Amino acid sequence: MGMNNLGIVVRTIERADKAAVEKLAGFGVATIHEAMGRVGLMKPYLRPVYPGAYACGTAVTALVQPGDNWMLHVAAEQLQPGDVLVVGCTSDNEDGMFGDLLATSFRARGALGLVIDAGVRDTKDLAAMRFPVFSRAINARGTVKATLGSVNIPVVCAGALVNPGDVVVADDDGVVVVPRAVAMQAAEAAAAREANEAGKRQRLAAGELGLDIYNMRETLAKAGLRYV
Amino acid sequence: MGMNNLGIVVRTIERADKAAVEKLAGFGVATIHEAMGRVGLMKPYLRPVYPGAYACGTAVTALVQPGDNWMLHVAAEQLQPGDVLVVGCTSDNEDGMFGDLLATSFRARGALGLVIDAGVRDTKDLAAMRFPVFSRAINARGTVKATLGSVNIPVVCAGALVNPGDVVVADDDGVVVVPRAVAMQAAEAAAAREANEAGKRQRLAAGELGLDIYNMRETLAKAGLRYV
Amino acid sequence: MGMNNLGIVVRTIERADKAAVEKLAGFGVATIHEAMGRVGLMKPYLRPVYPGAYACGTAVTALVQPGDNWMLHVAAEQLQPGDVLVVGCTSDNEDGMFGDLLATSFRARGALGLVIDAGVRDTKDLAAMRFPVFSRAINARGTVKATLGSVNIPVVCAGALVNPGDVVVADDDGVVVVPRAVAMQAAEAAAAREANEAGKRQRLAAGELGLDIYNMRETLAKAGLRYV
Amino acid sequence: MGMNNLGIVVRTIERADKAAVEKLAGFGVATIHEAMGRVGLMKPYLRPVYPGAYACGTAVTALVQPGDNWMLHVAAEQLQPGDVLVVGCTSDNEDGMFGDLLATSFRARGALGLVIDAGVRDTKDLAAMRFPVFSRAINARGTVKATLGSVNIPVVCAGALVNPGDVVVADDDGVVVVPRAVAMQAAEAAAAREANEAGKRQRLAAGELGLDIYNMRETLAKAGLRYV
Amino acid sequence: MGMNNLGIVVRTIERADKAAVEKLAGFGVATIHEAMGRVGLMKPYLRPVYPGAYACGTAVTALVQPGDNWMLHVAAEQLQPGDVLVVGCTSDNEDGMFGDLLATSFRARGALGLVIDAGVRDTKDLAAMRFPVFSRAINARGTVKATLGSVNIPVVCAGALVNPGDVVVADDDGVVVVPRAVAMQAAEAAAAREANEAGKRQRLAAGELGLDIYNMRETLAKAGLRYV
Amino acid sequence: MGMNNLGIVVRTIERADKAAVEKLAGFGVATIHEAMGRVGLMKPYLRPVYPGAYACGTAVTALVQPGDNWMLHVAAEQLQPGDVLVVGCTSDNEDGMFGDLLATSFRARGALGLVIDAGVRDTKDLAAMRFPVFSRAINARGTVKATLGSVNIPVVCAGALVNPGDVVVADDDGVVVVPRAVAMQAAEAAAAREANEAGKRQRLAAGELGLDIYNMRETLAKAGLRYV
Repeated sequence: MGMNNLGIVVRTIERADKAAVEKLAGFGVATIHEAMGRVGLMKPYLRPVYPGAYACGTAVTALVQPGDNWMLHVAAEQLQPGDVLVVGCTSDNEDGMFGDLLATSFRARGALGLVIDAGVRDTKDLAAMRFPVFSRAINARGTVKATLGSVNIPVVCAGALVNPGDVVVADDDGVVVVPRAVAMQAAEAAAAREANEAGKRQRLAAGELGLDIYNMRETLAKAGLRYV
Repeated sequence: MGMNNLGIVVRTIERADKAAVEKLAGFGVATIHEAMGRVGLMKPYLRPVYPGAYACGTAVTALVQPGDNWMLHVAAEQLQPGDVLVVGCTSDNEDGMFGDLLATSFRARGALGLVIDAGVRDTKDLAAMRFPVFSRAINARGTVKATLGSVNIPVVCAGALVNPGDVVVADDDGVVVVPRAVAMQAAEAAAAREANEAGKRQRLAAGELGLDIYNMRETLAKAGLRYV
Repeated sequence: MGMNNLGIVVRTIERADKAAVEKLAGFGVATIHEAMGRVGLMKPYLRPVYPGAYACGTAVTALVQPGDNWMLHVAAEQLQPGDVLVVGCTSDNEDGMFGDLLATSFRARGALGLVIDAGVRDTKDLAAMRFPVFSRAINARGTVKATLGSVNIPVVCAGALVNPGDVVVADDDGVVVVPRAVAMQAAEAAAAREANEAGKRQRLAAGELGLDIYNMRETLAKAGLRYV
Repeated sequence: MGMNNLGIVVRTIERADKAAVEKLAGFGVATIHEAMGRVGLMKPYLRPVYPGAYACGTAVTALVQPGDNWMLHVAAEQLQPGDVLVVGCTSDNEDGMFGDLLATSFRARGALGLVIDAGVRDTKDLAAMRFPVFSRAINARGTVKATLGSVNIPVVCAGALVNPGDVVVADDDGVVVVPRAVAMQAAEAAAAREANEAGKRQRLAAGELGLDIYNMRETLAKAGLRYV
Repeated sequence: MGMNNLGIVVRTIERADKAAVEKLAGFGVATIHEAMGRVGLMKPYLRPVYPGAYACGTAVTALVQPGDNWMLHVAAEQLQPGDVLVVGCTSDNEDGMFGDLLATSFRARGALGLVIDAGVRDTKDLAAMRFPVFSRAINARGTVKATLGSVNIPVVCAGALVNPGDVVVADDDGVVVVPRAVAMQAAEAAAAREANEAGKRQRLAAGELGLDIYNMRETLAKAGLRYV
Repeated sequence: MGMNNLGIVVRTIERADKAAVEKLAGFGVATIHEAMGRVGLMKPYLRPVYPGAYACGTAVTALVQPGDNWMLHVAAEQLQPGDVLVVGCTSDNEDGMFGDLLATSFRARGALGLVIDAGVRDTKDLAAMRFPVFSRAINARGTVKATLGSVNIPVVCAGALVNPGDVVVADDDGVVVVPRAVAMQAAEAAAAREANEAGKRQRLAAGELGLDIYNMRETLAKAGLRYV
């Protein structure tokens, strides 16, 4: 494709298995991230625009230029029911690239949310609509439509690599990417972890210590911990 | 006035036209900012101390020193019903310069809110009072009263120039300054924009794409966008 | 103790007087901080994980390594009813070191909250449990258990020195440390300050100016303030 | 001029008096800033791209958009011998807007330096050319030429208001703006301050204390300082 | 490979063509980045540890954990003459993961430099050795060797995706990644660009304006630029 | 001493043993920090104002208020030959609190350097004088002399606790605090470490791998590292 990947829209992508996405949708980001072995997390500067926002869907990706949201309009057309748009930016930028009009359009396409490494606005409306958005900043400053980026190429968003069709899960704790190929495996691991945690929670609530539940005392002593 | 503008209180300022302020008060910051052609916005690090805070009023300005809120007391006397105090600081500082006592005083003077490029405290009380404050930080640390600043001189607050008497509008999306001379023009442009947006929103909700509504397809093709 | 203080758990600490802690528990952080003469405040980057979180208790301290929450499990055993765990980190780190399982365990021990100069996760659960946590970041990323820190040694947390047994008070405005030896004195000063503020609030609400209540006019004039 | 000031080039500006600029050129930024009464300083995140860079000249101003250096080419034509270009940006951006080609062009116009609230590149060449540049970042990332800003309107650069024709002085300590109208007064005050400092330096080098030279002991005692 | 890519060392990687690397080695980062169409740049927070540091080589990659440099020792064995080690970290961390001992080892293996999204130390020694290092921070704080990462898997370093065998070029202006497959194409484009720039530089030095050389006047007028 | 420690100058402090300080003065910060078991390091945002700056001496401490350098004059009188002034600030502040005049005075008292969690200025002069300063920022902005802090009380500086009389060592890699009581022990450990490193350096230069020198292969395999 030549030396760079700007100015391209990939129309056909392979999305993660629907059953896997549905199974993942029951879990929180921390659980999935742990279940996968602590990989795939975006940087914690991404925050929900309202408390309790939650999204789990298949990634359509966009790469945009600073101060320019042209590609979000291009991406809208590629969105299908169940998708979440994931947006990386070619350089650090906090301009407000997305607001209630685009949210209306995305919802009309069936999209379930937005994860964007830039700013957004109209946050009061987004909260009223319950359209989940996870962004780097809230910023009323609008953008131009002048420079091409791309849609549905691999993008780096908030430090994580996202391929089109991967599963993206986002909640108050952050945003995690589950590669398409391991989506079902991750869902099962998350379910196992949650089951395991339920038991732990009961024992901890009853006053047992993690030191004992997780058998840490010996390892701590070997590492040299001294009680004085 | 000599080489600098510290130690001065300007008692008589010309405030923006009341009708214009009232007309602007119906609109959000993003709308006004767009309507004006994307100028006048403060940096997005200013945030409301409680969700849903909103203020629209005429600016009384203050310039303060780091760790020193003396001028806020001086400014209180210059506040009139309908004013919003806008505070710049001579160097970056996040100390808590304002709390519920000053809010009580400001409200007694008829002030509608505070925009401050520094810290504030007593945020629980401010939220309970519904006194809208937009600040750089929340910080319990108090300040001294030792060094002069000024009141009602032009100040730079969070990157934006504010002249006394300008209109300041603040909501969850940020803070925008509308110069006094163009307040009515801005209000009319905001009204026009909002009317226009209502129509767009319906079309987008019905599934039409921004690509078509805004006629972007040809420009995108000319810019070289390729669908693959 | 040799050159460093890593790998140590101090089991016996002297906690601040219970009566003093109870008396302090009625006041906000800003009030206590002012009453003490503006000392003991942690940096304002520590924020509550849900609005309205409040904690006042005796400090059990922990020093942890970046990306490693091993010591939090060790600290759990040292917690007694009425304690707040205060966690410093050996280098800047925002990994999610604490979640709902540890919160369950801490609560079972009688702990009243957590102040941590690192990240936490499961914030939705923490809010539902009403377990007050004040942290540097919210981050789903988990941690390992591999490197020793210490428990109940003096720690620097968010720029403030905390000794085990000190009183720690945290609310929406920040986190303040009250040294054990002056806890009652601080509580009394806070009570005096609050009483004094009540009167001021009434006068300010009635329209009197701080300029007059605090007799600032003469000092301002001497400092050279000019009204123009 | 309508509601905003984008898309405008002001061709005729009144520059500060040449004699004043020449007199100021002998002084450091800290000295001038002090001599003016501590006003006019840009934020300290602006740094020289090579140690020892120094510029003192009359400001031609430009307002640019993030990721877009179009206006720097427009500004080049407005530069006259003795000018320094001062660039504000409509939102925070660190893209590399300026490099050795523009520096070559600016020097050919007689410009003495650049102060820019954004990024620059080709810093090795700039150092070799000894073309003084003070920027927010060093960044190889290039920019587009797509969106209008303005030239020779008042701009906010790194927190300071700059009017075209003002004097701008920049060295390793920072960047200060001297309003056109007070340039000679500031130069004289700087000269007086420097003369005064020379005497102080000798006394301090001889071991006298600032406590005595500046008569601080009594004021400190009055403020309550206790020696223990 | 299961759900995650931790704990893996890939021993056989395909390196970019030697001739391409040699050809690229003549150019600066800004030139290569432009020649490729403005892609592949790492974030500008990566800085050389001494002025004039330059590296151009084939990437061996490592993924490390915060506060843990174990994988750098593992990576050393995979380094071949002409390689540059590129290190991503699983969460933001500025601990000093690399110093003069590892530099000695890397040089003995024939490595040409280090690009690391974390901290380094012994910078005086690194400068004396002229071993080029580009890092996020300088920090004396050492690290443990306790948790596995990986070597020679794709990593995100300072916002850019790097595959083992890609070419990495780093100088005072930043760090750029050239994908293995397009290395020669990029080198040729860089050569063409540099030749073109030489002509431009002469014309600009002679006083011609970019406005004329790049034919901007008409486009600016169409965009609405007004001279007043 | 009441509830707070502001407004106090402690005139008599116990300084670390001269022989220990002299022995430490031969070592770099990274070496001492490692030798002590990785404790005592200040945050890496403290940087030298010129490359190669180095200081090793006994700490006189000062606590200052934001924007106020009064206490630096008070501290000057407490400085003795061989001392380094360590300055903490009651809230984050980057104003330029120290310049060439105070450096002249400090040097006349025999002081060896300054470590300050705030800004400094006159950096060109400081470099010319070779007076080593390690600061949080370089900033021409001057300060007032209006609010009391303290001298020779324990202070937190850049995240580290410093007691008067401790040894402070600072170089390009950072700043480390060696508690008075363990100064000689730390010096001996540093010497041992440096001797040990010399041998390692030779082996690494000869091509041996850290994997073998430090016997890491087995531990890595046990931890699960796989070569593919």
